[in-house]
Amino acid sequence: MKVNGKHYTSVWMEGTTVYMIDQNLLPFEFQIYKAENYEDVCHAITSMLTRGAGSIGAAAAFGMAQAFIQASHNQYISVEQAYQKLNATRPTARDLFAATERVFNAGMKSVQHAVEEAFLIHHEYIKAGEQIAALGNGLIKSGFKIETHCNAGWLGLVDWGSALAPIYKAAHFGKDIMVWVDETRPRGQGARLTAWELQQEKIPHKIVPDNAGAYLMSRNMVDIIFVGADRIARNGDTANKIGTLEKAIAAKTYGIPFYVCAPVSTFDMKCPTGKFIPIEERPQEEVLYQTGIDESGHLHKVKVCSPESEALNPAFDVTPAQYITGIITEKGIIRPCENEINFCN
Amino acid sequence: MKVNGKHYTSVWMEGTTVYMIDQNLLPFEFQIYKAENYEDVCHAITSMLTRGAGSIGAAAAFGMAQAFIQASHNQYISVEQAYQKLNATRPTARDLFAATERVFNAGMKSVQHAVEEAFLIHHEYIKAGEQIAALGNGLIKSGFKIETHCNAGWLGLVDWGSALAPIYKAAHFGKDIMVWVDETRPRGQGARLTAWELQQEKIPHKIVPDNAGAYLMSRNMVDIIFVGADRIARNGDTANKIGTLEKAIAAKTYGIPFYVCAPVSTFDMKCPTGKFIPIEERPQEEVLYQTGIDESGHLHKVKVCSPESEALNPAFDVTPAQYITGIITEKGIIRPCENEINFCN
Repeated sequence: MKVNGKHYTSVWMEGTTVYMIDQNLLPFEFQIYKAENYEDVCHAITSMLTRGAGSIGAAAAFGMAQAFIQASHNQYISVEQAYQKLNATRPTARDLFAATERVFNAGMKSVQHAVEEAFLIHHEYIKAGEQIAALGNGLIKSGFKIETHCNAGWLGLVDWGSALAPIYKAAHFGKDIMVWVDETRPRGQGARLTAWELQQEKIPHKIVPDNAGAYLMSRNMVDIIFVGADRIARNGDTANKIGTLEKAIAAKTYGIPFYVCAPVSTFDMKCPTGKFIPIEERPQEEVLYQTGIDESGHLHKVKVCSPESEALNPAFDVTPAQYITGIITEKGIIRPCENEINFCN
Repeated sequence: MKVNGKHYTSVWMEGTTVYMIDQNLLPFEFQIYKAENYEDVCHAITSMLTRGAGSIGAAAAFGMAQAFIQASHNQYISVEQAYQKLNATRPTARDLFAATERVFNAGMKSVQHAVEEAFLIHHEYIKAGEQIAALGNGLIKSGFKIETHCNAGWLGLVDWGSALAPIYKAAHFGKDIMVWVDETRPRGQGARLTAWELQQEKIPHKIVPDNAGAYLMSRNMVDIIFVGADRIARNGDTANKIGTLEKAIAAKTYGIPFYVCAPVSTFDMKCPTGKFIPIEERPQEEVLYQTGIDESGHLHKVKVCSPESEALNPAFDVTPAQYITGIITEKGIIRPCENEINFCN
């Protein structure tokens, strides 16, 4: 997708260097981080400079390829150690482990094979996003007002994205659409990343407080909802950013189609229902503080609540399949309450 | 209720001076504003230094009394003009108009009558809050986890409050309770005012992002919900802070009792249903910016979202009566879906 009119992917490789958009600086600064070696890639993933399952997977794939290149020039580099270090950067991102394993195995044949496998993985994420875009676009009519929660855009999936992909495709086809961007407290990925992505693509949108969802739905101001997913159980129960569940319940109440968008890799076929998905509890500081820029463009971290109070910060919730109209994957749209999901075959 | 261990009401009068807790400085600073004349009271209401229907009503009543005192000493003061100026401070607060009218009419008899009427109004708000406290307390069992949205505490209703009143009463009776405080974006009245009130009363509580409501309910972590109200239609439909509707829908889904707490003065018997309640749209800056203090205690206003994006900021939503278990008033608990409401007789 575009930044200042120029096409970018969230992560890419040129020569032996891996490039990444620094998502920690967005939306206030647009900078490209250069990872000269796999250690730099480890740092980028750990510090959340790059984020989102697909972007992490592609970055780790390139990092693993870099390790093979480094090892071919320097006997002190161990590809096994690089493999372990890359896998240790984030604990739960399933795409990470799949990507490093594929490149590691390819590298057993040759350095060239490792590099090609990494580029293939990068390419696959782009294709998955574009397929989700095409399938989701079929659900969008011109004139639609679309709500989305958190950021499931191209920043998190190399290009196109998952939940935002159908929106980009609809806009490319010239459909007249408008997007309600849930702020997505506490980290504000909607207000900061989704709004920034849409602004760059010149797609009409407005940020709304998370509290406004049911209000908009009750007033016929939402035609369809697209969200991403962090993990999908075998029965269709979906873990996604905290607040997704409230939107899904409200959408059911008002009869608004609620779609989860995710590549097939997000399904955890070993997980029978949402009950078995662990919910990460993150530091309360994310609720108690906010960062932003003042009029002079200086970044500040400020406390926004009663100084002595504490907070609870569950990062995800689980939306039962019964609230999900469909799950849009690159292989087709699944209706969890109509069809049994089976990707094992 | 208490601040630093000492009992306060949000507004009071001593001699000819009206005192108010400066709610614009909370929770970062605790300061008392002294209004020496009715013009100062106008300023305090307009600038939202004092806020909440009851606190505005009491402040305006004292301001009107001040105008009569001023006029008795100075022929250039017109009580009619003071009456008009006080009424022009806020457009929608019904309590404001009722309070100034009562004191104005009393002042036609004597200055002493005006002052006494103002003190009576102040006292009535305290009594209403205490009655709501007593009735609501009957619904709270020891061990309960209670969720509340926005601030319907004593800061907004002179003393006790509405939604927080039952919580204070339960705590005074030694019940073991715990309060989930919805942050209440965009203005953060939960995180800033409700959490501060509870902290001062030493009531266990945690701030949660507004997004966490359904998550907590889905995990049996909420036993009862209390919210305030800005206007209640004749059929029980209730306008309250944006986000109340989402909580009410989620509560219905998970079978959690959802109570609205408000004095009888909040009912608008001329309004047949919620459809006729106008929803105020507030400046988008409240969504795009946040204020808070840095480590050195300096206040900053920072932009927390994509710099070029716009926002929508509806301040209230309407919860249909079907989602409300009961409305707790000083005169009793009304079950909107069981009884017809009729306060006209």
